[in-house]
Amino acid sequence: MVGGNGIKTVGLAPKMDSGFYGKDIISVRQFTRENLSYIFNIADEMRAVVRRVGSTDLLKGHVLACVFYEPSTRTSSSFIAAMSRLGGSVIPINEVRYSSVTKGESLPDTIRTLESYADVIVLRHPEMGASQVAAEYARKPIINAGDGVGEHPTQALLDLYTIQSDLGRLDGLNVVMAGDLRYGRTVHSLARLLCLYDVQMTFVSPEILRLPLDVMNEVKALGRPVRETYDVRDAIADADVLYVTRVQRERFADQAQYDELKDYYVITPELMENAKKQMIVMHPLPRINEISYALDSDPRAAYFRQMENGMYIRMALLAAVLGKA
Amino acid sequence: MVGGNGIKTVGLAPKMDSGFYGKDIISVRQFTRENLSYIFNIADEMRAVVRRVGSTDLLKGHVLACVFYEPSTRTSSSFIAAMSRLGGSVIPINEVRYSSVTKGESLPDTIRTLESYADVIVLRHPEMGASQVAAEYARKPIINAGDGVGEHPTQALLDLYTIQSDLGRLDGLNVVMAGDLRYGRTVHSLARLLCLYDVQMTFVSPEILRLPLDVMNEVKALGRPVRETYDVRDAIADADVLYVTRVQRERFADQAQYDELKDYYVITPELMENAKKQMIVMHPLPRINEISYALDSDPRAAYFRQMENGMYIRMALLAAVLGKA
Amino acid sequence: MVGGNGIKTVGLAPKMDSGFYGKDIISVRQFTRENLSYIFNIADEMRAVVRRVGSTDLLKGHVLACVFYEPSTRTSSSFIAAMSRLGGSVIPINEVRYSSVTKGESLPDTIRTLESYADVIVLRHPEMGASQVAAEYARKPIINAGDGVGEHPTQALLDLYTIQSDLGRLDGLNVVMAGDLRYGRTVHSLARLLCLYDVQMTFVSPEILRLPLDVMNEVKALGRPVRETYDVRDAIADADVLYVTRVQRERFADQAQYDELKDYYVITPELMENAKKQMIVMHPLPRINEISYALDSDPRAAYFRQMENGMYIRMALLAAVLGKA
Repeated sequence: MVGGNGIKTVGLAPKMDSGFYGKDIISVRQFTRENLSYIFNIADEMRAVVRRVGSTDLLKGHVLACVFYEPSTRTSSSFIAAMSRLGGSVIPINEVRYSSVTKGESLPDTIRTLESYADVIVLRHPEMGASQVAAEYARKPIINAGDGVGEHPTQALLDLYTIQSDLGRLDGLNVVMAGDLRYGRTVHSLARLLCLYDVQMTFVSPEILRLPLDVMNEVKALGRPVRETYDVRDAIADADVLYVTRVQRERFADQAQYDELKDYYVITPELMENAKKQMIVMHPLPRINEISYALDSDPRAAYFRQMENGMYIRMALLAAVLGKA
Repeated sequence: MVGGNGIKTVGLAPKMDSGFYGKDIISVRQFTRENLSYIFNIADEMRAVVRRVGSTDLLKGHVLACVFYEPSTRTSSSFIAAMSRLGGSVIPINEVRYSSVTKGESLPDTIRTLESYADVIVLRHPEMGASQVAAEYARKPIINAGDGVGEHPTQALLDLYTIQSDLGRLDGLNVVMAGDLRYGRTVHSLARLLCLYDVQMTFVSPEILRLPLDVMNEVKALGRPVRETYDVRDAIADADVLYVTRVQRERFADQAQYDELKDYYVITPELMENAKKQMIVMHPLPRINEISYALDSDPRAAYFRQMENGMYIRMALLAAVLGKA
Repeated sequence: MVGGNGIKTVGLAPKMDSGFYGKDIISVRQFTRENLSYIFNIADEMRAVVRRVGSTDLLKGHVLACVFYEPSTRTSSSFIAAMSRLGGSVIPINEVRYSSVTKGESLPDTIRTLESYADVIVLRHPEMGASQVAAEYARKPIINAGDGVGEHPTQALLDLYTIQSDLGRLDGLNVVMAGDLRYGRTVHSLARLLCLYDVQMTFVSPEILRLPLDVMNEVKALGRPVRETYDVRDAIADADVLYVTRVQRERFADQAQYDELKDYYVITPELMENAKKQMIVMHPLPRINEISYALDSDPRAAYFRQMENGMYIRMALLAAVLGKA
């Protein structure tokens, strides 16, 4: 987002104190308790509208360019549905690798072309920082839909919104994150957002997949209580939220080590007997076998609600950056 | 479709006596004369609307997820056009092979994610039974757009609708099906639907591409008169409908056999001189050379009308399962 | 476009004296000063509408099939945006190579199927003449979005519109075209359109990339003054328009020759010091390094405005051929 004076106004993802209109959504670091609460309220309204009448005309006549340099059915479908239910239109661009980019066009040129057609751009790109670069050149709002090992802020927002929505609060909760905490960008972003609240975080992973030191230090620096353990069975009893991510076999040096550990990271109905009655199990999906299918009918299984919430959060963000919230 | 009581209500594709609202469209076996007549009446209305004003707002605010695990330009375009002309929106998902599915996600998880964004799902999948599985997990209606060697019910419906629409009736007709009757799923489904009517069926194919015994026995069990012949010239004279499918060279063991037979299966203007004045030639398309291009201007050539009817039938089905017909 | 009498009315791209309704847009040769002025006036109105309210309902209920046999993000996005901002819907068909075409279906059959769903078809095809063939079979309007080394008329129209729009006139201008004038279809089409106006054309290229003789003779036959030079520095001083295209390294026999020449074909701020204050630099994009990024903030850099104008021109054409302009 280039300001009226031609000076880049995104820089290091400033906090958005003065509203969302015309702003880029690049990083979870842009968010405060206040503007999260603002977005969550809009998301609540979006849910009410969708459940009651399916859609609104709030963004009628507006056009979203949905630019995916790498495929992500889930995220792109969610944004397309969000824009459609707001009455707007979508230019779906899923094959960037076959297009002008392969002729050597730079990201800034592609973005400046697309913003001449669209009112807002959602960008998924394999390189960290791509959304920031796009935002520096674009005059229209850019929404980061994942930039490599960087950020995926709308995922973190929908995760946080699901906790707030299902449990009615964020302060005072014990949030357990289990699985691959080292490479899981989802977990890093969520942990950073949770630091804005009075939350106890518990990290459960095998040794080689522990939360990276920089994220851990960020959480600790904010004075939040932190626990680490290898054993999900150990952590589940007092969890208000159990956030599970995939543990990939490839991360382990030898098969034996994987086989020994993997059972700790599969959430089964039997394991859930140790959990509270009032808590939720989350997963960013796709799951492979980290959560037993037998758990799907448990009311505490929140992962499909989480998907649905993604649409409401994206509706809220689109409406907000286009000044229609 | 999971019922309110949590019990799967699809099972072996029950007849839809109690209306279409909320139902899945999985198999031609679900249809009766009564509900076919109901759908055809809606399709008639859809045609009238499209010809008069282009579209309606019947499904305004509704979202269709169009999920194609294998490409089919014709079918997906037809559904997208149908939803657009009903005023609704579409999430086109054509690259499933590049997406979360390649990360190993199961069909039930993909479907449950997509139904959290959409109101109805159209599914094309290479494996027989995939739509049935999807329907068992989904709370929103599933429409089968082809599942491998299984069914493609909307194709069969548009075929039947074209006969009804062009000839004004179904009872009392002689329907000749010619070409590859062994592997052609289209022919099998149409034959099953035709059994609901007082129809004479004539099957024309080379020996190695004869109608499979199970389909033949099904037709005979219903007491419908059946003829089989090798020679389309022999069958065309008293045909009310000539339904042609592709005969693929690869099906023949040797080239000589193919060369000898193929002329019987190319419909030319010369051959059509033996046909009635009031009859129609159909083809599910794409054709290669089974029907001469010279026939295209013959009013009896119904295959492009057949395509157009596909859109009206799909409009009717979408409106019906969403309770707006 | 088949006329009511069944006679092909496109033939050698007749001039469109009697309006655009129902017509195909195949070639720049169809245009006269009068109908260009008509289209440019509609494009002006489209720009006004988009800037004021984002979109109109002019084509509400209409469906565009956007059929790209080869990828072109820029062109397809522009048409999708244009149709969306007119209130219409789009069937995006980007993977034709995976579809029924790979089963051997002919272009006429594909087009006749798609026109049974859509009201207008935009076609991009790798083979010269494909749009003409499509138009001969289709009853609905075909818009050529590029057919191989043939034409790309909407690109030429948006180029001409940008000159008219930025400089307020076409007669009396000196238009300099620089770069690859041999293979650049864009330049050929623009030169042909410019012949309708009292324009001085200056062609700047290395020897091996000079304007082909047939195009040059066409321009000369119309009595337009023409200059040719190797040196862009030489030509820039009195240019009203500098139209730059990519010079590809592969066109040169040896690297030394390329290295020697390439500096003449990179437009830098330093070079632009020799240019008029009132002139524009254009490029069809994507650019590689023919125009320095440092020029982007120069008000004379018109290439992103050019992109935006593409949307307005396409809105105008869609509205015109559908009889809603």
